[in-house]
Amino acid sequence: MDESTPLKVALLGCGTVGSMVARLLIEQADDLEARIGRPLELVGIAVRRLELERPGIDRTLLTDDALSLAGRADVDLVIELLGGIEPARSLILAAIAAGSSVVTANKALLAEDGGTIYAAAEAAGVDVYYEAAVAGAIPIIRPLRESLVGDEVTAVMGIVNGTTNFILDKMHTDGADFADVLAEAQRLGYAETDPTADVEGYDAAAKAAILASLAFHSRVKLSDVAREGITGVTSADIAAAKEMGCVIKLLARCALSDDGTIALGVHPTMVPASHPLAAIPGAYNAVFIESRHAGRLMFMGPGAGGSPTASAVLGDLVTAARNRVRGTRGPGESTYSARGITPAGKVCSRYYVSMTVTDAPGVLAQVATCFARHEVSLQAVRQESQGVEARLGVMTHLAMEDAISATIADLRSMAEVRPQIAVMRVEGA
Amino acid sequence: MDESTPLKVALLGCGTVGSMVARLLIEQADDLEARIGRPLELVGIAVRRLELERPGIDRTLLTDDALSLAGRADVDLVIELLGGIEPARSLILAAIAAGSSVVTANKALLAEDGGTIYAAAEAAGVDVYYEAAVAGAIPIIRPLRESLVGDEVTAVMGIVNGTTNFILDKMHTDGADFADVLAEAQRLGYAETDPTADVEGYDAAAKAAILASLAFHSRVKLSDVAREGITGVTSADIAAAKEMGCVIKLLARCALSDDGTIALGVHPTMVPASHPLAAIPGAYNAVFIESRHAGRLMFMGPGAGGSPTASAVLGDLVTAARNRVRGTRGPGESTYSARGITPAGKVCSRYYVSMTVTDAPGVLAQVATCFARHEVSLQAVRQESQGVEARLGVMTHLAMEDAISATIADLRSMAEVRPQIAVMRVEGA
Repeated sequence: MDESTPLKVALLGCGTVGSMVARLLIEQADDLEARIGRPLELVGIAVRRLELERPGIDRTLLTDDALSLAGRADVDLVIELLGGIEPARSLILAAIAAGSSVVTANKALLAEDGGTIYAAAEAAGVDVYYEAAVAGAIPIIRPLRESLVGDEVTAVMGIVNGTTNFILDKMHTDGADFADVLAEAQRLGYAETDPTADVEGYDAAAKAAILASLAFHSRVKLSDVAREGITGVTSADIAAAKEMGCVIKLLARCALSDDGTIALGVHPTMVPASHPLAAIPGAYNAVFIESRHAGRLMFMGPGAGGSPTASAVLGDLVTAARNRVRGTRGPGESTYSARGITPAGKVCSRYYVSMTVTDAPGVLAQVATCFARHEVSLQAVRQESQGVEARLGVMTHLAMEDAISATIADLRSMAEVRPQIAVMRVEGA
Repeated sequence: MDESTPLKVALLGCGTVGSMVARLLIEQADDLEARIGRPLELVGIAVRRLELERPGIDRTLLTDDALSLAGRADVDLVIELLGGIEPARSLILAAIAAGSSVVTANKALLAEDGGTIYAAAEAAGVDVYYEAAVAGAIPIIRPLRESLVGDEVTAVMGIVNGTTNFILDKMHTDGADFADVLAEAQRLGYAETDPTADVEGYDAAAKAAILASLAFHSRVKLSDVAREGITGVTSADIAAAKEMGCVIKLLARCALSDDGTIALGVHPTMVPASHPLAAIPGAYNAVFIESRHAGRLMFMGPGAGGSPTASAVLGDLVTAARNRVRGTRGPGESTYSARGITPAGKVCSRYYVSMTVTDAPGVLAQVATCFARHEVSLQAVRQESQGVEARLGVMTHLAMEDAISATIADLRSMAEVRPQIAVMRVEGA
């Protein structure tokens, strides 16, 4: 192939990101050609509904036969932007079988069944790139897979879902309730009509699984991730966090446990205002990495949206295209460490526990004894009398989830403690 | 070569970073082998003084004949950690001529004469990686060269020198003078005995040249960078910045000018407290990228030190080694845009100008007229009477450096204005 022979590109999906990618392939054609060494030619776009108006898109490229397009033998690079498990998986496998490299933003598929995709790519000698699947335009996959590959990553922690960050930010700023802010976010287009994937933490959990796989050279799946959304976060929780000098963020967290297994989960978490993640506003994303030698690194930027996601897709497309031109491929899946997952109950965190108790002598001692019985040690206690009752806020040192759960169950059985007990993880040592 | 044949590594330099790299090549040998697909074998370390004690380093590896080591035909990968122009350049060229890929942290050499190195590598078909040359362990070279390669970067701005950031941070916190803080930084080992490269901005300027080359696909050299250090920053400047809700940072800045040339410089700059770069503490580095599609990204982390730099070197080493195993190479120098440099006088910035004037009717009008004559428009003016004299602080809108210089010269010629006029750039629109 000489330098003027185009590399052929097929696009699956033409929504917000897809149509932006299609436009940029035309607009930036000269730059892309200069950076790759050969031109790119968009040869087809698979869509569900052929009849829709698509401004700026060449109608002759459209097809509703995605499988035929993905499996074209003359195509070099397939971009998958449909999302979801099927038909995305079948289409990606068809593309790989036909010898194409794949660029995808599909976090759900990679977290659910990435192993199948990576194995097929390995066997076919093609690339699968997915920078856009986690934290939008923020380069995080490539730094983990390549820049930090000579180091030992010990923890990755991030705000990787813009919708929930927007909602929690608003709840903090306005003191509003979750339901009201969600309704507003839906009106503004920041949240989907069915917000489950975002607010219940599924989206963040899929990203946590992908980040953990890369950071710890192991295969980690969505089902490995302990997951808690933000639907249970109340304005009282927000107020309590403020009192403690914290903000509440939905954190995706993966870290090496002492026994070498991977502790990972997505939980609403109190983050001290002094922590760099505390200041990440609205729809931004940020990922914080701790590694043995590099120390603490943080990456922030827009976590979603058509343009940022298209930027990440095109960066991967250029890299995959360069590999084609050189007849090589990038690093594949790395699972040699084969680390297990820390059982959720054994994962350690600091906790903030707040409750209402009878304001009588000896009650604080009883509560403290209850924590001690489960070997949960306390860092700070704050008691505030409100007449016959008192509010009690307890900050623990690092404790296992099992120990906290047992403590809470015991507290609930005490006559002096009201059953409504709020518990939240706290980031920081 | 089968999978058990080691790739041979030569190390030039065994100071803080070099000795750490040598140790990690042993300690992390299994991980590195798993990630590369073949083992690495350190076959020699070039040092200036053979007789020095080097704990943990195998003495049989040491040699003082760097040229012979660098040029060994059986070596695959050469790590250059000597710094400076010569003999580093000759050694790197010898390594490339012998068919080795090179990993270097040498910002001075790359900013001065990178073109020679990259051209030699291109001709020989080998890699030159240099993540450690800019911002220590923060992945910034790879994101610019690969992740954002499908986008159009419009500006890169950063705190890329830890020594000056430490000094300015201390001056802010303690209200101390430059000379006192520098002496303290030297005592603590944060500043060199000869601090010129850091405090005069040469180190930051070299990094700015490297970042601009990558961001704008052009060849940019150290001599293209307008440079001003922090030796002229006074405690009065710091106090004035505080009054304006700003902190002073030594910013390396490169951006596309309207005419498509590259505006770049290193200057002490007032940064509004709300800007993410304002909060970067002490010896940390941070790089802020603006691009057309990805939007605003920020990367932060430790900017120097043996461990973080070693992490960046090893990440590059693994990448270069993987390329060897696959018989390929990574992206080379990209200069197709061949953009020119904006003349320093034509670079636009906001400025803060503070001066002492005679406190008499009409003086403010005269000063304002002087700015207007040079077409510098004012955003804010703050006047504070001190009896017979008044302090006057003026924040401009975007103005060209030439216009500001001419304005200051005119102001100095006015009898009502004291000759001591402080001028500083201000970041933000």
